[in-house]
Amino acid sequence: MPTHDLLITNAALLANPVDGRVQEAAYLAVLDGAIAGIGAMADLPGETRADRVIDAAGNLLMPGLINCHCHGAMTLFRGLADDLPLMTWLTEHIFPSEARLVDAEMVYWCSKLAAAEMILAGTTTVADAYFHEDAAARAFCEAGMRAVAAQGIIDFPAPGVPDPKKNIEQAAGFLSAWQGKNSLLTPALFCHSPYTCSADTLQRAKALAREAGSFFFIHLAETRGEVAQIREQHGCTPAGLLHTLGLLDEQTICVHSVWLEKADIELLRESGAKVVTCPESNMKLGSGIAPLAALLAAGVPVGLGTDGCASNNDLDLFQEMASCARLHKVAAHEPTRMPAAGVLGMATEGGAGVLGLGRQTGRLALGLRADCLILDRKQPHLTPFHNPETLVYAGRGSDVATVLIDGKVVMQDRRLLSFDLEETLDKVRRLAARVRARG
Amino acid sequence: MPTHDLLITNAALLANPVDGRVQEAAYLAVLDGAIAGIGAMADLPGETRADRVIDAAGNLLMPGLINCHCHGAMTLFRGLADDLPLMTWLTEHIFPSEARLVDAEMVYWCSKLAAAEMILAGTTTVADAYFHEDAAARAFCEAGMRAVAAQGIIDFPAPGVPDPKKNIEQAAGFLSAWQGKNSLLTPALFCHSPYTCSADTLQRAKALAREAGSFFFIHLAETRGEVAQIREQHGCTPAGLLHTLGLLDEQTICVHSVWLEKADIELLRESGAKVVTCPESNMKLGSGIAPLAALLAAGVPVGLGTDGCASNNDLDLFQEMASCARLHKVAAHEPTRMPAAGVLGMATEGGAGVLGLGRQTGRLALGLRADCLILDRKQPHLTPFHNPETLVYAGRGSDVATVLIDGKVVMQDRRLLSFDLEETLDKVRRLAARVRARG
Repeated sequence: MPTHDLLITNAALLANPVDGRVQEAAYLAVLDGAIAGIGAMADLPGETRADRVIDAAGNLLMPGLINCHCHGAMTLFRGLADDLPLMTWLTEHIFPSEARLVDAEMVYWCSKLAAAEMILAGTTTVADAYFHEDAAARAFCEAGMRAVAAQGIIDFPAPGVPDPKKNIEQAAGFLSAWQGKNSLLTPALFCHSPYTCSADTLQRAKALAREAGSFFFIHLAETRGEVAQIREQHGCTPAGLLHTLGLLDEQTICVHSVWLEKADIELLRESGAKVVTCPESNMKLGSGIAPLAALLAAGVPVGLGTDGCASNNDLDLFQEMASCARLHKVAAHEPTRMPAAGVLGMATEGGAGVLGLGRQTGRLALGLRADCLILDRKQPHLTPFHNPETLVYAGRGSDVATVLIDGKVVMQDRRLLSFDLEETLDKVRRLAARVRARG
Repeated sequence: MPTHDLLITNAALLANPVDGRVQEAAYLAVLDGAIAGIGAMADLPGETRADRVIDAAGNLLMPGLINCHCHGAMTLFRGLADDLPLMTWLTEHIFPSEARLVDAEMVYWCSKLAAAEMILAGTTTVADAYFHEDAAARAFCEAGMRAVAAQGIIDFPAPGVPDPKKNIEQAAGFLSAWQGKNSLLTPALFCHSPYTCSADTLQRAKALAREAGSFFFIHLAETRGEVAQIREQHGCTPAGLLHTLGLLDEQTICVHSVWLEKADIELLRESGAKVVTCPESNMKLGSGIAPLAALLAAGVPVGLGTDGCASNNDLDLFQEMASCARLHKVAAHEPTRMPAAGVLGMATEGGAGVLGLGRQTGRLALGLRADCLILDRKQPHLTPFHNPETLVYAGRGSDVATVLIDGKVVMQDRRLLSFDLEETLDKVRRLAARVRARG
């Protein structure tokens, strides 16, 4: 038996949140970034050796969480201008700040802050989407996070893409630069929305994604206003437009998808397209409530995302899970909707499936990559701990003590190990002072 | 100038969340439990002396939060049986567990756990309501929390009140035992609801409360089922029933108040009655969304509560604020609803007003009691910190570093100081094992 790189002992193992089963007194062994052993302490072979041992001391060991939609760099705009009408917020605050401040350096540092925030809250994989995504991809790689990084495409001058005519060309450059470069990073494309990208842009972007075997993300049917606009311009729903343009397939990930009609859900199901729901962002912006029960009943794969910090305003998937579980109950006046175990599954195995990473992450099993967290369940707000549903309704990101990504300990006892957090905080605070100095 | 008991220096002072103004580099001085000095560091008299100095080091100093509705002892049932239909949950899980396990010792230890959880999350005042409330009152006093403790009244055999005919008599005993006993503790009454208490019980309880000058709490119009039942039995709405019975006045606090008609809101306004909203509980149980905007527009005082752990499942008012701010935006499809500053005000000065404690707590000003918290705003998920709204949308109870109640440091650097937390956790875990051993 080889010497393992790392051995976690005495854990309460929640190997797959979907089944909710907790095995007390378990171990997990890591070799070359993969799970090389997992099971009951009683079955741990006596000759097992490891370079490093972490005693979980009865705490919960579970898969890392998967954030299926984020604009990491927007940490800079966290709480910049809350509680305003949507268009005032966008046109008077977010867009001007983006135009003035978003460059590669900003995206790098602010994505690094996002990575720190997510790792500290137990998120091990993120699907990010922004401009200057090359800088974001560098930040996530240096943070040691697993990431699907999607370069933004929009038909307006955008940060790093002053000439929108070149948006597809630049996105192609991003894909080729990152394909096969880092095993933790999957490059992808992100068309902002059907109301900010022309049919031609959408089709060219999807053709490029198909050619590269990449995911195509798009904000879809986020607001009633968007649906009205698309109906006026194209005579169909946003999902109907994507269908007509031939953009829906298993590599298309529709974010938000709040205002879907029955026929839209059927189009998504037939095509194999996937959905990411961002309940806290949809709540805060007053956008609406996605038809999750209907999507899940139809068998559409659904992942959970935080969206960016300008509209959430944090990247804590524990709180996102709670909001998701609670929101759909109150919307339906039905306490059995979106049970906590299902939501926990959506934030782990479900999210991995949506991002095409189901054979790497999302649960803890032999041969998968070691993306996991150790959570301190001995705290007052988690006591008693009758079952894992408690994580959804009472857990917070700050309960996570230790995080492994791809077998590497990136956070231990709440200390970030993969990069210099203070340097990043300092850089972002300097940028934030420039945000406030506007006008 | 006398020597102060405590001096907090170098704080970013948010003296009253309602106005949202943060004064950088401020101090707060405490003498005999009261705020004896507050202002800019530059104005701190040179001769100021204090027995103890806490350097806030640029962190936020603000009033402690006020939880206007809680069943502290129900921490024992946290996550016991989530996501079930309401009546299954109540009749097959909560009621049987209560009947089997609730005694004075259980209430004492589980209320103490609740106090620990709340203090660790920055809550300095709680309005609690349960049975064996004498034991809860002892727990809160020993924890050093400011509390309004309300003895439960119901027309069924209840823990500690096997004969419902004696429910008013026992409640009277509770009031007289605790009046004037401890400056932090205000005794009160809690009639469970208009569907579990007869008109006679409600009137006798309110008469007792009036005689004693005490608050009268009641769960009101929580579900549509309750409204239908009251309408069938009494031919009016729950609020209408209270009005008809002469129970509405400034000392009546209506909890939940989800299903109110326009006329109900007018009855509450005219009478001076107050409302406590518990959005996370209402969401998780699928009860509905309270008409907060209409209540506030009518001028009805509204406080924020977590409800008990069986239906929330934590006692973190930071997350409750976030849920409150977000829920009403999505319900109205309007991002300007329930602005964060207003919600922060509801959880501080507003809550103090509802509980009749406005001259003691809820904001930081000369002469008020020193109930405050120091919050670490330097963490990644609070960076940048453009404004205090960030506390509502991105803050969590675990961001609170230090808590003072009535001038005493009950928590410092996340360590609970007022009692032995490990002993309490141990006692509750033993009780929890008995919960699971049912059947």
